[in-house]
Amino acid sequence: MGRAALWNAIHDTLAEEIARGHYAPGDRLPTEAQLADRFGVNRHTVRRALAALAEDDIVFSRRGAGVFVRHVPTPYPIGRRTRFHQNLLAANRVPEKRVLHLETRSANAQEAQALQLGDGALVHVYEGLSLSDGLPLATFRSVFPAERFPDLLSTLRDTRSVTQSFAAEGITDYTRARTEVTAETATRTQATLLEIRAGDPILKTTGTNVDAEGAPIEVGSSWFAADRVVLTVSDAPSA
Amino acid sequence: MGRAALWNAIHDTLAEEIARGHYAPGDRLPTEAQLADRFGVNRHTVRRALAALAEDDIVFSRRGAGVFVRHVPTPYPIGRRTRFHQNLLAANRVPEKRVLHLETRSANAQEAQALQLGDGALVHVYEGLSLSDGLPLATFRSVFPAERFPDLLSTLRDTRSVTQSFAAEGITDYTRARTEVTAETATRTQATLLEIRAGDPILKTTGTNVDAEGAPIEVGSSWFAADRVVLTVSDAPSA
Repeated sequence: MGRAALWNAIHDTLAEEIARGHYAPGDRLPTEAQLADRFGVNRHTVRRALAALAEDDIVFSRRGAGVFVRHVPTPYPIGRRTRFHQNLLAANRVPEKRVLHLETRSANAQEAQALQLGDGALVHVYEGLSLSDGLPLATFRSVFPAERFPDLLSTLRDTRSVTQSFAAEGITDYTRARTEVTAETATRTQATLLEIRAGDPILKTTGTNVDAEGAPIEVGSSWFAADRVVLTVSDAPSA
Repeated sequence: MGRAALWNAIHDTLAEEIARGHYAPGDRLPTEAQLADRFGVNRHTVRRALAALAEDDIVFSRRGAGVFVRHVPTPYPIGRRTRFHQNLLAANRVPEKRVLHLETRSANAQEAQALQLGDGALVHVYEGLSLSDGLPLATFRSVFPAERFPDLLSTLRDTRSVTQSFAAEGITDYTRARTEVTAETATRTQATLLEIRAGDPILKTTGTNVDAEGAPIEVGSSWFAADRVVLTVSDAPSA
């Protein structure tokens, strides 16, 4: 068997073991030395097989730390009705939200403008962490007009769900007027919360949700761990 | 005047000078020592004013290099008709495209699937750089079915425009079926092309364009310098 056939066979064996769950997302693969031992080849051949797995986006390497199985990113549609819970269930993921911080304070200039509030108006702020199958997906901050929704903060604390909390305030439907997408690199704090490394890429979305009359009821941002998500924008109107 | 009033005044003066174009996007501000001299304050006060400008996203600092005026990002709508040229004109920017590489080769598995081509089918590949007001905005790679559009490559070379090249092939309209958005950090090669630093955030979009019958005619990716662009997704159908 030639060298190309050799590393191809090792590539295929490892890819299959990963597909069957023998190595799970986030797992570290055995070292090059261990794999060379197992397959009875030299480390150069192992390295070529691992490079091919990395090109396939099946594994990724961290300098000095080893080669890890990549998490399959969660597809996350951005559209007229962007709902965390529904998006994750549609992707066969278990959705979870954790509260990091809840407060009521004066709106800053940007928030007041987005929510069409006057100077000094109060807003509820909900900061949290969203998870997909137990893995941190994004941190988020949502801001709501406090005068219109006096009891929203306690419902958010109890349910952690924006949709449910709106429903309790009589908002049975709301839609996303506009979403902006940018990218950043993770700060230390973000990295700790998202269980990634400082400097890793972050996808940031900022959106405004409006009620049936078009009045803004929420302005929110999410900071996604970029390799755990693919934002999708479809031509077809999302129902 | 108290310290807060002092640095607020320095902040407002610098913000106004930037707004009036005295310092242009990309310019380096004078050093802390020079600013302290000019305003007759200590460097701590200057630092506080610069930090406030950074919080406003008016300037950014590069360790060891100084404080620079931020470029105002180009808003870039992602929708049913995503056109580079029109998007930039709508944002009052001068659009420009440069050809980096043109070739005809066999489709890889992903390309063949996206373009619904059989094994071994040929594709035209157009790699280039797009610029906004002379500043690199994104690198891109677009892939087209070669059998359907035999002369596309020479039109692309001459016009550099996908829309014009399609028109020459009788495609008077085409629409974006789906766009995926992810984030990465810039490799050295990307950084050189985009005039950013390796490790800086990159916004990557991958989209499929279809003809009036819904047949895929282009699959393409763009790698945007993240702080030069804001991708926008609107609820309103883009005309």
